[in-house]
Amino acid sequence: MTDAVSPLAVALPELPPLAGVRLNAAAAGIRYQGRTDLVMIEVAAGSTAAGVFTSNKCPGAPVDWCRDSLKGGKARMVVVNAGNANVFTGRAGRDACAATAGAAARFVGCAASEVFVASTGVIGEVLPHEKLVAALPALHAGLSPDAWEAAARGIMTTDTFPKASTRVAKIGGVPVRITGIAKGSGMIAPDMATMLCFVFTDAAIPAGELQTMLKKGVDRSFNCTTVDSDTSTSDTVLVIATGQAGNPAAPLGDFSAKLSEVLMDLALQVIRDGEGARKLVKIDVTGAVSAKSAKKIAMCVANSPLVKTAIAGEDANWGRIVMAVGKAGEPADRDRLSIGVGGVWMAREGGVIPGYDETPVVAHMKGSEIEMAIDIGLGSGKATVWTCDLTHGYIDINGSYRS
Amino acid sequence: MTDAVSPLAVALPELPPLAGVRLNAAAAGIRYQGRTDLVMIEVAAGSTAAGVFTSNKCPGAPVDWCRDSLKGGKARMVVVNAGNANVFTGRAGRDACAATAGAAARFVGCAASEVFVASTGVIGEVLPHEKLVAALPALHAGLSPDAWEAAARGIMTTDTFPKASTRVAKIGGVPVRITGIAKGSGMIAPDMATMLCFVFTDAAIPAGELQTMLKKGVDRSFNCTTVDSDTSTSDTVLVIATGQAGNPAAPLGDFSAKLSEVLMDLALQVIRDGEGARKLVKIDVTGAVSAKSAKKIAMCVANSPLVKTAIAGEDANWGRIVMAVGKAGEPADRDRLSIGVGGVWMAREGGVIPGYDETPVVAHMKGSEIEMAIDIGLGSGKATVWTCDLTHGYIDINGSYRS
Repeated sequence: MTDAVSPLAVALPELPPLAGVRLNAAAAGIRYQGRTDLVMIEVAAGSTAAGVFTSNKCPGAPVDWCRDSLKGGKARMVVVNAGNANVFTGRAGRDACAATAGAAARFVGCAASEVFVASTGVIGEVLPHEKLVAALPALHAGLSPDAWEAAARGIMTTDTFPKASTRVAKIGGVPVRITGIAKGSGMIAPDMATMLCFVFTDAAIPAGELQTMLKKGVDRSFNCTTVDSDTSTSDTVLVIATGQAGNPAAPLGDFSAKLSEVLMDLALQVIRDGEGARKLVKIDVTGAVSAKSAKKIAMCVANSPLVKTAIAGEDANWGRIVMAVGKAGEPADRDRLSIGVGGVWMAREGGVIPGYDETPVVAHMKGSEIEMAIDIGLGSGKATVWTCDLTHGYIDINGSYRS
Repeated sequence: MTDAVSPLAVALPELPPLAGVRLNAAAAGIRYQGRTDLVMIEVAAGSTAAGVFTSNKCPGAPVDWCRDSLKGGKARMVVVNAGNANVFTGRAGRDACAATAGAAARFVGCAASEVFVASTGVIGEVLPHEKLVAALPALHAGLSPDAWEAAARGIMTTDTFPKASTRVAKIGGVPVRITGIAKGSGMIAPDMATMLCFVFTDAAIPAGELQTMLKKGVDRSFNCTTVDSDTSTSDTVLVIATGQAGNPAAPLGDFSAKLSEVLMDLALQVIRDGEGARKLVKIDVTGAVSAKSAKKIAMCVANSPLVKTAIAGEDANWGRIVMAVGKAGEPADRDRLSIGVGGVWMAREGGVIPGYDETPVVAHMKGSEIEMAIDIGLGSGKATVWTCDLTHGYIDINGSYRS
């Protein structure tokens, strides 16, 4: 396994304090040595919450816990650990969530159901929650409005760089800030949400409206990305609004747009840090019979091991793209299909374009950001998804993850 | 790319002549240097034929050709080339099929529609069919009843060993032989058939009954295997009965069973030669709500990159298996699930079995044939599928296949 940072990494943006949020990270010794692995985030009393979770039928205990907690629409605390996902851990897993949330709730005098817990890491091993509980007092004593980077780092597993995004939106003329952190970086094929992502805003927004905007934003961002087709058991995206900005109740169009920007920014950072990734790949499908059909085709191409290894090999292999379009099972006609890479159409109407000049395509494939266009030629349905290439790095990381 | 033979390879069985079949292979220089790449198989007049083909929506021109030819139910000749799949080649692809079949038909004085053509290799490049046509006269002159191994080798692409299987069945007391050859070894996730497989028998069997038995046999063999989830555009399984054995019209139970054995043997040889494969993996799913649900779950586990890389790393990672069961979208209850490897149950009722002894499981994972058992605990639906591990070899082969 390599310790190198992804060549697609982006720098952490400046993350100013956000009114009503204090954070801290600590090394609880859950699995990793010599790094932080436990994060506490306290939010102001009266904060509202929204969340979306994995569609995996075998979700982790923390996902069950958060789904229950979300019914109240209120949040006071988020506790996240890395190194152990607390998934497939039966009664012990449920007990771990209750014990952690209960202990955290005592610091702020809230109900345990206002504490959201999330875990990421190995599946199937019991979470040593005593270590979490023992670390909480010091974590709480050290909470700070400036610890965004520490929090972003504390939730990482195989991630090679911390991921954060921030925007300022206006509601009724009042500026409000939206800041999110996220982690990847394998088992990424979200189908409601992806992995762990925590977004905060100082805006005052009722939980119901927050949930609607979150769902819309996630569908267009995280749900349009894949690293390896494997939908995690722990996918969680939470948005918490502290209500400290003093905004009036007013149209939320700008807020919703900026929230979607933050979610998209974080989703792409996760793909940029996909296990073993050397190239970020954008796949635009147009001309499908419907948007749903376009999305299915695009994801099928994005998940094809043969397309992904070809990209790793810097080979604009349109034949494998044709195969992946055809295997999706959606309406497609080989003889109406067009395939382009890097803005150059290579194949059209069932065959390679006669005399097509490979030079600009070859140059594009050597870059770190690849663009692929697929026109199905049947209708007006379109979709865009993002993925990364499949390299030796992925095998290195996942052939030895537990050892 | 490595030239080493798969560690899972099996020896070619003895392949005696089969009445009514003559074969030959030649080097036509289509793509490979220094090896055969064109195979001709002539069958006796009056032979009946059955076939199943890829479900990929962008099939190759040879698949279209064979589907049309099959309407007549009769065969006199099969011509197969390796190195170029003649897929996504538009009008030129259709012309190549017609020219090759037309030229081959002249040697035996049959209709072009009684010639079956198949191609395997690179997708999206025009097949230089003049090279095929030019090589046919010498191929035909050299036809022999003893050239089974030459034919099995001539259709290989990234295969590391030739694949064949033979059985003797009885129909009305008369012994008949069934012999098949096949090739893999990437883009394997059959969904009607897989890749190229040609089976011959000297039995006299009407085309309709042959088709029924083939469909049944393929559903239980090739359609239960996967290397990389990528469904090829060229999958073709043909069965041709020469009628030379002199069997009466009689119940076909034994023949159907032996045909299924040949298909299963060949399907497993394809998986044993999966690109980069070091381990053959059998996945038994029981207790699902239906057989269809069990199959979907089993294939979802078999196609999970995280399960496959864990197996490559000799890690009995039940957590990833739980994830893959859950991502299938089929009914499953985390808390009723049981997971076993190598005959040892590791996890049951939503968690690892307390005090479970990892020693025999670790030893099993170091072997070359891995058995995995998954009980869903909800019903009586079951399915068995086969796959291989995901290794650096797969990346090596597919990151540089065209170069």
